[in-house]
Amino acid sequence: MTSTRIETDAFGEIAVPADRLWGAQTQRSLENFRIGAERIPLPMVHALGTIKAAAARVNASQGLLEGRLADAIVAAAEEVARGALDEHFPLVVWQTGSGTQSNMNANEVIANRANLALGGELGTKSPVHPNDHVNMSQSSNDTIPSAIQIAAACEVTGALLPALVDLRDTLEEKAGAWSGIVKIGRTHTQDATPLTLGDEFSGYARQVALGIERIEAALPGLHELAQGGTAVGTGLNAPSGFGEAIAAEIAQATGLPFVTAPNKFEALAAQDALLFAHGALNTLAAGLYKIASDIRLLGSGPRSGLGELALPENEPGSSIMPGKVNPTQCEALTQLCAQVFGNHTTLTFAGSQGQFELNTYRPVMGYAFLQSVRLLGDGARSFTANLLEGLEPREDNIARGVANSLMLVTALAPTIGYDNASAIAKTAHKEGTTLREAAVASGHVSGENYDRIVRPEAMLGPDRD
Amino acid sequence: MTSTRIETDAFGEIAVPADRLWGAQTQRSLENFRIGAERIPLPMVHALGTIKAAAARVNASQGLLEGRLADAIVAAAEEVARGALDEHFPLVVWQTGSGTQSNMNANEVIANRANLALGGELGTKSPVHPNDHVNMSQSSNDTIPSAIQIAAACEVTGALLPALVDLRDTLEEKAGAWSGIVKIGRTHTQDATPLTLGDEFSGYARQVALGIERIEAALPGLHELAQGGTAVGTGLNAPSGFGEAIAAEIAQATGLPFVTAPNKFEALAAQDALLFAHGALNTLAAGLYKIASDIRLLGSGPRSGLGELALPENEPGSSIMPGKVNPTQCEALTQLCAQVFGNHTTLTFAGSQGQFELNTYRPVMGYAFLQSVRLLGDGARSFTANLLEGLEPREDNIARGVANSLMLVTALAPTIGYDNASAIAKTAHKEGTTLREAAVASGHVSGENYDRIVRPEAMLGPDRD
Amino acid sequence: MTSTRIETDAFGEIAVPADRLWGAQTQRSLENFRIGAERIPLPMVHALGTIKAAAARVNASQGLLEGRLADAIVAAAEEVARGALDEHFPLVVWQTGSGTQSNMNANEVIANRANLALGGELGTKSPVHPNDHVNMSQSSNDTIPSAIQIAAACEVTGALLPALVDLRDTLEEKAGAWSGIVKIGRTHTQDATPLTLGDEFSGYARQVALGIERIEAALPGLHELAQGGTAVGTGLNAPSGFGEAIAAEIAQATGLPFVTAPNKFEALAAQDALLFAHGALNTLAAGLYKIASDIRLLGSGPRSGLGELALPENEPGSSIMPGKVNPTQCEALTQLCAQVFGNHTTLTFAGSQGQFELNTYRPVMGYAFLQSVRLLGDGARSFTANLLEGLEPREDNIARGVANSLMLVTALAPTIGYDNASAIAKTAHKEGTTLREAAVASGHVSGENYDRIVRPEAMLGPDRD
Amino acid sequence: MTSTRIETDAFGEIAVPADRLWGAQTQRSLENFRIGAERIPLPMVHALGTIKAAAARVNASQGLLEGRLADAIVAAAEEVARGALDEHFPLVVWQTGSGTQSNMNANEVIANRANLALGGELGTKSPVHPNDHVNMSQSSNDTIPSAIQIAAACEVTGALLPALVDLRDTLEEKAGAWSGIVKIGRTHTQDATPLTLGDEFSGYARQVALGIERIEAALPGLHELAQGGTAVGTGLNAPSGFGEAIAAEIAQATGLPFVTAPNKFEALAAQDALLFAHGALNTLAAGLYKIASDIRLLGSGPRSGLGELALPENEPGSSIMPGKVNPTQCEALTQLCAQVFGNHTTLTFAGSQGQFELNTYRPVMGYAFLQSVRLLGDGARSFTANLLEGLEPREDNIARGVANSLMLVTALAPTIGYDNASAIAKTAHKEGTTLREAAVASGHVSGENYDRIVRPEAMLGPDRD
Repeated sequence: MTSTRIETDAFGEIAVPADRLWGAQTQRSLENFRIGAERIPLPMVHALGTIKAAAARVNASQGLLEGRLADAIVAAAEEVARGALDEHFPLVVWQTGSGTQSNMNANEVIANRANLALGGELGTKSPVHPNDHVNMSQSSNDTIPSAIQIAAACEVTGALLPALVDLRDTLEEKAGAWSGIVKIGRTHTQDATPLTLGDEFSGYARQVALGIERIEAALPGLHELAQGGTAVGTGLNAPSGFGEAIAAEIAQATGLPFVTAPNKFEALAAQDALLFAHGALNTLAAGLYKIASDIRLLGSGPRSGLGELALPENEPGSSIMPGKVNPTQCEALTQLCAQVFGNHTTLTFAGSQGQFELNTYRPVMGYAFLQSVRLLGDGARSFTANLLEGLEPREDNIARGVANSLMLVTALAPTIGYDNASAIAKTAHKEGTTLREAAVASGHVSGENYDRIVRPEAMLGPDRD
Repeated sequence: MTSTRIETDAFGEIAVPADRLWGAQTQRSLENFRIGAERIPLPMVHALGTIKAAAARVNASQGLLEGRLADAIVAAAEEVARGALDEHFPLVVWQTGSGTQSNMNANEVIANRANLALGGELGTKSPVHPNDHVNMSQSSNDTIPSAIQIAAACEVTGALLPALVDLRDTLEEKAGAWSGIVKIGRTHTQDATPLTLGDEFSGYARQVALGIERIEAALPGLHELAQGGTAVGTGLNAPSGFGEAIAAEIAQATGLPFVTAPNKFEALAAQDALLFAHGALNTLAAGLYKIASDIRLLGSGPRSGLGELALPENEPGSSIMPGKVNPTQCEALTQLCAQVFGNHTTLTFAGSQGQFELNTYRPVMGYAFLQSVRLLGDGARSFTANLLEGLEPREDNIARGVANSLMLVTALAPTIGYDNASAIAKTAHKEGTTLREAAVASGHVSGENYDRIVRPEAMLGPDRD
Repeated sequence: MTSTRIETDAFGEIAVPADRLWGAQTQRSLENFRIGAERIPLPMVHALGTIKAAAARVNASQGLLEGRLADAIVAAAEEVARGALDEHFPLVVWQTGSGTQSNMNANEVIANRANLALGGELGTKSPVHPNDHVNMSQSSNDTIPSAIQIAAACEVTGALLPALVDLRDTLEEKAGAWSGIVKIGRTHTQDATPLTLGDEFSGYARQVALGIERIEAALPGLHELAQGGTAVGTGLNAPSGFGEAIAAEIAQATGLPFVTAPNKFEALAAQDALLFAHGALNTLAAGLYKIASDIRLLGSGPRSGLGELALPENEPGSSIMPGKVNPTQCEALTQLCAQVFGNHTTLTFAGSQGQFELNTYRPVMGYAFLQSVRLLGDGARSFTANLLEGLEPREDNIARGVANSLMLVTALAPTIGYDNASAIAKTAHKEGTTLREAAVASGHVSGENYDRIVRPEAMLGPDRD
Repeated sequence: MTSTRIETDAFGEIAVPADRLWGAQTQRSLENFRIGAERIPLPMVHALGTIKAAAARVNASQGLLEGRLADAIVAAAEEVARGALDEHFPLVVWQTGSGTQSNMNANEVIANRANLALGGELGTKSPVHPNDHVNMSQSSNDTIPSAIQIAAACEVTGALLPALVDLRDTLEEKAGAWSGIVKIGRTHTQDATPLTLGDEFSGYARQVALGIERIEAALPGLHELAQGGTAVGTGLNAPSGFGEAIAAEIAQATGLPFVTAPNKFEALAAQDALLFAHGALNTLAAGLYKIASDIRLLGSGPRSGLGELALPENEPGSSIMPGKVNPTQCEALTQLCAQVFGNHTTLTFAGSQGQFELNTYRPVMGYAFLQSVRLLGDGARSFTANLLEGLEPREDNIARGVANSLMLVTALAPTIGYDNASAIAKTAHKEGTTLREAAVASGHVSGENYDRIVRPEAMLGPDRD
């Protein structure tokens, strides 16, 4: 960063790295906010590119922006949108709460890039001016919430949902493959009546399927864009119909059904749609947590655990205990769920703290949401590929568990009554005998009847035998 | 509680207050769980009554339960459902995680009540047995999650949503009434371009309207009942079709579209639908928090605050400062939102901690959810009646704010450029002059043009003038 | 509530139940805040009694309050303090955020009670006036935070800490009693090298011991009282030295080392000391959660679980599965920990939202904190009495686990190297043989050496053999 | 990454980038955990270097490790500790919950680096073996929690606390400088009795001072190291006294008073000390949030806000509203506080989820804690430098507020009674008159007496006049 050039803004001149396209306001932010290392997420940067290109198109079509400038802005903005200029977006999350500095970062980079293309020089703001042209008909206050929602919807749709569909399908496959493996059920972690291993996995598959449905139910809220509200929601300095037109452009560019928000005051002052959508992610995380925790415990052992599942061995498990294999994919997934739960607290807090015409917790909300999306998507993919696909039942252990179970006594209850059945189970437990021995000894049921009634495979519910 | 009678269960005899209908297991829970004072919420108790009546009807119709017993159970259960036996449900939230003890509480009370009606004696379990008859075809493991969801759906539909509709309507009314009052906008808490007071309230109304939509989007998940899964989700000991039949009975009894959950393993092992629905409540709370906070600040003063709103005076505000009036309804509402946020953490945690075939955090989940519903409903009603309805604009203060504003300069930017406009605003601020003085002095605009361009009422957006 | 009398305040007349001692402001609050059912916690009410008695003493000693009135106020306030007038404190948590209405509730009840004692009539405010005399030298703004901290410190010291000491002692007792029972260790839920059951319980005991230390480290902050700051922290209308004097009176009355807060502006505008103290409760809850979860899993079975502990059977476990015994005390404890975690979110949120000279989230903060204290204390007591004391090891299962373990191979690593040891464990696992068979077959160790090196009782650490 | 070499572990061969020092297990982790972009925080990496160097020293001094190897390990580990090998630590947070893979990353890098120095080749594990030598007497299970606590203590002590001391000192300076500026107090956001601007800032200073004390109170827990417990807490394969000796070495290397944890079972299975310490950070964040929020509102305007403070202008505030200056430092600080609150939820959750002998949520706990420390430290520094130091009172506005206030009436209450004073304030408010006019008109006080009694500068408390 030895070589610099001079850029200017309303505060005067400032030196900027010569090989970077950003301008004075970006540089000021870098110097005034030396906080942490978390940068504005790239999907937000790319969404800013999408917005700026769309805005230039609409402004040009309305006759507000000269065609030559519009074309140059569109070209530069599309470079931003496709990730070609990522290195020119250095700002951290911990900046102004409107994200103004990141909006200006986009304006400055696009203006400089467009001016280069038009034969101009960096830092001259001519012929393309970052505020007057790139930011035309926009304000940070509508652009940043729009960028967050565009990034959120694109990442959810393009990355998270496909990963969840794979996860659900793999779980359903397992549920089908293991529908004939009768095993002991467990409630309160204690032995209960039997079900199949396939039943268990069908429950997991259903959790993920519902998780997908819930996320999809929250998506329409993300598709309503603040863009067009400008500074306070009135749309001042934007032409009539700008919100509708730019939403259509953005829908075209992304392939997602973006529309303009019916009430821009709400869209600027709140970010409730994002919080609600994260509620769906939070619920999904709770579900994934349960699934991973179960598989971890069902795979515990190999000798002194529940031992019903064999997890694929992907790596050495211990630096001191040779030969140890651990449920590491479960641990990665459960850890990232803990992060998602924390992000929900952050989003809830930040989402409640808007004041008057603006919520000024936008960067941290975008950051937290997009981190959750990324982690859940990556985590689901890794869990599917590195754990679920290679997961195998340990059928000998499973069969032994069913054979030994005392809770098969439940099948006797409709015949001999709850209280008698209860006494039989307790006797068997106390004396360490089999359930059959205790049942026959009780005099309430003959051995023959016992064998007829107490069949685990007949205890799988009314329509299953 | 001097007089007692003897009740029995699998653990033997135990003394129970003579004037109470509960039995041995309820009494044991009372003695083993002397923890806190939070009882199982009454809506859950009532829902247990609804379930027990419905179960008896289905069991009778399937020929499993003698008509005379069924009738007596239905009659007793309906007393529970309509709140006539509340005092016989003494158990606290901090009990077994399946809620078994509260399910047994219902079974015991209904059996005893039915036996009394049938000429029997308390504690005899005859002719109606709490497990064999009242709990027939059920387990705590499907009954308690069903009771929670029935209670949740009924309270949301019957109490919360109507309160929110009133709140939204009142906000919309204000938005309409105040659509002509131009005021200073505020972003980052700083003066910004103008909007109308009606615009601000239209944003609030939209937040509540969307809050209602989100809650409605989460309701269908609550309508899917676990009932029929019995102990582990297989439906063992319930007849074929029991889940469908009892859901139909419950739908009939409540007037809400309950159906049987397609996958009972998920329905017992998870309570994700409740968590997702609370995500909608959590988002609503974030929105209400923002609205109440704004109104609190807009009503600040009376002399040294923003002073744009006059809040109704409902009570003396200070024990030491005579004549003080405080935004107490805002404070009640924002405090209960803080409770809802905490409840969301509780529900997220508890919802993630199911193990194998059962989630054993049911009582705390029911408690937290129903507390949020109650508080949000009551809070919205109180806020509407005691604050919003009497809220008035302080038009003199509002007009003064618009007149003094420096951010009207934004209207000049399209004409003289962002940088020149910026310099004018800064000069006026530094020198304490009006914006017009500074603008004309700058030479960029004549006084005539200034008066033509800078009109607050013309700065309300493209379609508003 | 048929019979009423008239009370008055600055807002005029209002009817109050004739048999209640509260006055106009309490009644107004009842009518204006029909929200939820959660009342101001009784420990706070009692603390208000303590404060009012102490204030009257100090005011009298400074010559500000006539002795006859002071004596009557002290007598009435002490009735409040010892719980004799609880039924006269009907207000809910969801009221004004300063708790003014509850401070006035105390002022009104004490004034009315004192006036009765002095031969006066209810509602006359004479000779004792609720504001001028009972509230003399005070404001809600210093009284309510003081009441919260007094209640918090008293409940922590008097109820929670003794319960934790019992819990710790019981855990230490178990650790001692079971120091000779060698068992398989588990890391990642997978079999690991051995330790003793006593070791495990010593870890639990240490968690509780540290939990106690952390709470004690947070107590001094609670002992610093806001009282004396009056309305905004300046102490206006309180005599010089009032804060010090009343803190000494309160210390005398409670036996706890209360002092006056060095900076009253902080003490009124923040409640950070309470939040920090709840951080200690939150950490304790995380520890208790871990302990209860372990015991639940170690006690899982009876046939298909880990089966290392036998939990006392306190009640029937299932309404459908006869003979089932569940870890219900673990479930009660883990559920209440989930509530504590939620309360921490509430307190964090509320604690951050003070504005200017006052935090107006006091009632919800007091409510959440005191609920956590109550639940943790009751929960610890119930867990100790109903689970820990009757807990027994299942030594046969434990011994079998050790004998079968593959992780005993770790003892070979220092001799034959990590990589060779790893291969042996994997072979034994794959082929289902004992570790000894696989080790000898590997050629890296003779049977004799194996028996010398691999002794579980010698694998308990460097100083244990 | 075109050029590779072969590394091996118990799972066989694997290709590793030729220019990287890591080995097979690190590479496997990279391939198995393609989740997110969050790397193990560098302070943890450096702490691993510190531990490995200390371990080699102790092992050598006990005669367990040849001097030549020990020296090479120490040299390499110290390179890690001082950040010279950061690029060789590529692993993400979302890996095995014990952090084994990062411990092995350190073992592999140090072994390779040492072998190079000793003339060996990469990947040969000779003469220095990553497990047998670098990891000697250690396990991931004691090393990772130790590394987290070392990193946490070092960052808190070296970076956070100094930043907080500066912040506190700057606030105290302001409190001193502004002790003569009398201003209107505000409670419930409403006008209240006066105090000085210095008083307000003394409250902020006290919040930070107490924040520092609380963090310091939590530090001793972080100084107790798990190291020496090895795999399950027994210390298997570590020599007697290893824990004490290595803690002494680490204390020496860092200058902080690290000691060995008295109970290693607790130290491995829980991470409560970290959670408690984060409770102090969480409380600090709540305090900083309040301070930043106040300053934001006190600086609101410039024309239609409270306008009592002038914030330094660091950058243009709006992309559309020229000349706007926003409280951006407040926004950065409040946003990062929201992140800290979320991190507390993550840590609470993760801290509660240990199982048996190990907590397997270590990487996310280390990540969340160290992020909070970094953000709070950087945030405090930025806030101090870029906002507080240039903060100025707007004395004209402040004086006007005091002059207009109605709450000066409080000074009359001791003389004319609360009820009369209340009526006067209400009259003045209703009629828009000054307080003096209304007071004299009421007949309760003469103009002369009014002027004697109602002096704002005399209303600053009993010892202030």
